[in-house]
Amino acid sequence: MNNPQLNKHGELQHLLSIEGLPARILREILDRAAGFLGSAEGNEIKKVPQLAGKSVFNIFFENSTRTRTTFEIAAKRLSADVVNLNIGSSSTSKGETLLDTVDNLCAMHADMFVVRHSSSGAAHLIAKHVAPSIHVINAGDGRHAHPTQGLLDMYTIRHYKKEFHNLRVAIVGDILHSRVARSEIHALTTLGVPEVRVIAPKTLLPTAVENLGVQVYHDMEAGLRDVDVVMMLRLQNERMQGALLPSAQEYFKYYGLTQERLALAKPDAIVMHPGPMNRGVEIDSSVADGAQSVILPQVTFGIAVRMAVMSLLAGGKQ
Amino acid sequence: MNNPQLNKHGELQHLLSIEGLPARILREILDRAAGFLGSAEGNEIKKVPQLAGKSVFNIFFENSTRTRTTFEIAAKRLSADVVNLNIGSSSTSKGETLLDTVDNLCAMHADMFVVRHSSSGAAHLIAKHVAPSIHVINAGDGRHAHPTQGLLDMYTIRHYKKEFHNLRVAIVGDILHSRVARSEIHALTTLGVPEVRVIAPKTLLPTAVENLGVQVYHDMEAGLRDVDVVMMLRLQNERMQGALLPSAQEYFKYYGLTQERLALAKPDAIVMHPGPMNRGVEIDSSVADGAQSVILPQVTFGIAVRMAVMSLLAGGKQ
Amino acid sequence: MNNPQLNKHGELQHLLSIEGLPARILREILDRAAGFLGSAEGNEIKKVPQLAGKSVFNIFFENSTRTRTTFEIAAKRLSADVVNLNIGSSSTSKGETLLDTVDNLCAMHADMFVVRHSSSGAAHLIAKHVAPSIHVINAGDGRHAHPTQGLLDMYTIRHYKKEFHNLRVAIVGDILHSRVARSEIHALTTLGVPEVRVIAPKTLLPTAVENLGVQVYHDMEAGLRDVDVVMMLRLQNERMQGALLPSAQEYFKYYGLTQERLALAKPDAIVMHPGPMNRGVEIDSSVADGAQSVILPQVTFGIAVRMAVMSLLAGGKQ
Repeated sequence: MNNPQLNKHGELQHLLSIEGLPARILREILDRAAGFLGSAEGNEIKKVPQLAGKSVFNIFFENSTRTRTTFEIAAKRLSADVVNLNIGSSSTSKGETLLDTVDNLCAMHADMFVVRHSSSGAAHLIAKHVAPSIHVINAGDGRHAHPTQGLLDMYTIRHYKKEFHNLRVAIVGDILHSRVARSEIHALTTLGVPEVRVIAPKTLLPTAVENLGVQVYHDMEAGLRDVDVVMMLRLQNERMQGALLPSAQEYFKYYGLTQERLALAKPDAIVMHPGPMNRGVEIDSSVADGAQSVILPQVTFGIAVRMAVMSLLAGGKQ
Repeated sequence: MNNPQLNKHGELQHLLSIEGLPARILREILDRAAGFLGSAEGNEIKKVPQLAGKSVFNIFFENSTRTRTTFEIAAKRLSADVVNLNIGSSSTSKGETLLDTVDNLCAMHADMFVVRHSSSGAAHLIAKHVAPSIHVINAGDGRHAHPTQGLLDMYTIRHYKKEFHNLRVAIVGDILHSRVARSEIHALTTLGVPEVRVIAPKTLLPTAVENLGVQVYHDMEAGLRDVDVVMMLRLQNERMQGALLPSAQEYFKYYGLTQERLALAKPDAIVMHPGPMNRGVEIDSSVADGAQSVILPQVTFGIAVRMAVMSLLAGGKQ
Repeated sequence: MNNPQLNKHGELQHLLSIEGLPARILREILDRAAGFLGSAEGNEIKKVPQLAGKSVFNIFFENSTRTRTTFEIAAKRLSADVVNLNIGSSSTSKGETLLDTVDNLCAMHADMFVVRHSSSGAAHLIAKHVAPSIHVINAGDGRHAHPTQGLLDMYTIRHYKKEFHNLRVAIVGDILHSRVARSEIHALTTLGVPEVRVIAPKTLLPTAVENLGVQVYHDMEAGLRDVDVVMMLRLQNERMQGALLPSAQEYFKYYGLTQERLALAKPDAIVMHPGPMNRGVEIDSSVADGAQSVILPQVTFGIAVRMAVMSLLAGGKQ
């Protein structure tokens, strides 16, 4: 099967999932993002004219104000025109098919689609359908992928740890239902991280997760020992009401990240979280706000990474 | 009665309905739209500075993501600032009158209003009320009019058929409830189309429709014979549940556009549809996606036509 | 306690409430607003590049299309990039705390937050929390404050009356539940108005309202006599259903502003209303649309005043 994310010259055509992207492309995105952040620390991201005259459509089939906002800001920093569409309550309720809706939006002179959909594979379907002049970015599709989150996490790790080849990384929490976790594991592996651990109760792990090249821990203390990076996952509220977990309190007792547990990792380990956080459920406030937390820099880096992806897709030189 | 759409110099002041617009104005809009589309085929519509510094307010008293998006894109291609307002859930629920809401928006330094309302005549009411410096575009009012749809259809016909004076055009479907159909008939007649046919069951035709200068057909095969243009109308879902129609299947059996039926028209006949389509109800997928379909170019032309209307209202030279 | 609205140089850092702002700052805002309105009457407000490259986030925890629109237009007139967020249905429903949401938005490279929240003090809380590079404007918090409304009213009074020190001003209506009334009283007092009256039934007055430096009238005829300015308040629908008021008709009988009552004020008195109006409840249509009404100019001045506040916060020279 052809890789729908790359064109015949091996350049990025769509961003659909980390799977299938060579390390070369990942590094190109991270390097380009660094250029947007400038030399200083902090959240200074200058507005640049790279996408002036281009139209970016945020097509959200499920609502996500936070994600939509990050892409909207990234596009506006690149001087694009941004059109936000909440499709959920719109044409699909009028009996129109997904691809007819997409065809219509293409015909309105779109240059780039940022797609969020509750069904896995929706962004792939759209990417296969559109003309070659239109680029698709997956902003989350069901449980499948959320590649810009994976990329901004890689940016964050490289920013603080400089290299990937000497790291031990632990991913903690609801691996089973997380579209982030899959992207992370693929990205870490592709960029050469030698040891990726997943820490979770059995009920929150996919079957055969070892086949992704990770080490499985059910005991958090054991899993955190001597790691360089702790990547927490969000525990979605709906999981806590079902049969998978006894209660939020119980979860925190065994898998919440506390200062004591974090002390088992390397002294300079960083703590990451994709947000929004459930304080007191998967992470203690003292850790979330502590010196090792890089949770807010992740957000800033996320704007730069999304700018990098859009800029690369649009073919712009930096 | 004065024509509220033209100023005393005979220039376009508001776009409220095709009725009342002289052929001269229609042609001026179509010519101007051609300029925005450039020489090439395809959806290349360059951004131009004609409305830079102007504010376009999309005032939608009923929700229509698709229509709002086309106007938003058109305005942004002209470099206007665009403000979207969904009024349905806003001030009117606070007991404010429609004209008080409009007065307030005028006072906020608006240059142009794009108005969508469920009541026929709402755009006219607003146009009569505002100061001469403010221009109103009707984006659909009840069953009354949707003039930019009519204009983009005229653009499409001219694009593919070059002339109007030698054409036979059939409009098929729910003439009774369509705000598009009225606009089409008036536009076609004004531009000199000698033969306009309407094809529909009796329950979906207005009384005395012949007075609009059209020929009425209840039999689709007879009506399609030797036409140059087939304009399909959308069958709204709510019509299928009432007493007007037995079922969607039954409708398709008698009035659905199939390959076989289309073969009765001229070999180079074009097929149009305002969208969103109900595939398998008013149109077969093989026709919608077939070689004679110009349904997606209609959408692209629609952006250019809306730019042309805004540009003309703003008094800009092209 | 430090004044969180001023930085250590005494410059405006946030706009949270009129209380605590020295007359010097109020006058600076009014003077700056005059610059945006130009020399002419009318609603000509030119687009200027002062906030080009800056990002203004409209963070609305409760919906208010009208208020959001005025800030959006003001920011766009200053050439800022504007991002609208309706947070009500977003992250807070995912269990995230208010300050975590704010931290995230800060990390997305925001320069300015316009905050609307149903809880009194929300804007103060956010202002205390953000980094010094980020400025907060309160667009209404519970019953507490709505300072840009207060400022635009001061602008309106100065525009028509030139001076404050010789005025008699009456505020009429639901003082108890109005976030506008508090701001007005503070602003009028600070700018040197010698006589501020409040006119309301006892059930719609806060206890100890006299301590704010106003004279209390329960009889409208007595209260309106010889005033220069009549500031009407909106009677919110929900008040009319409770025990506070017998009915809208009854309210109009005793506290509605009619031509006869307005005749008791000075002949050149102006009539103001923050909108949206309940015609026939707190104000008669003949007064609302009459020669002494300055209700629509208030709206135009409101855009200029909001531009002035944003421009001052951003540190721009005019």
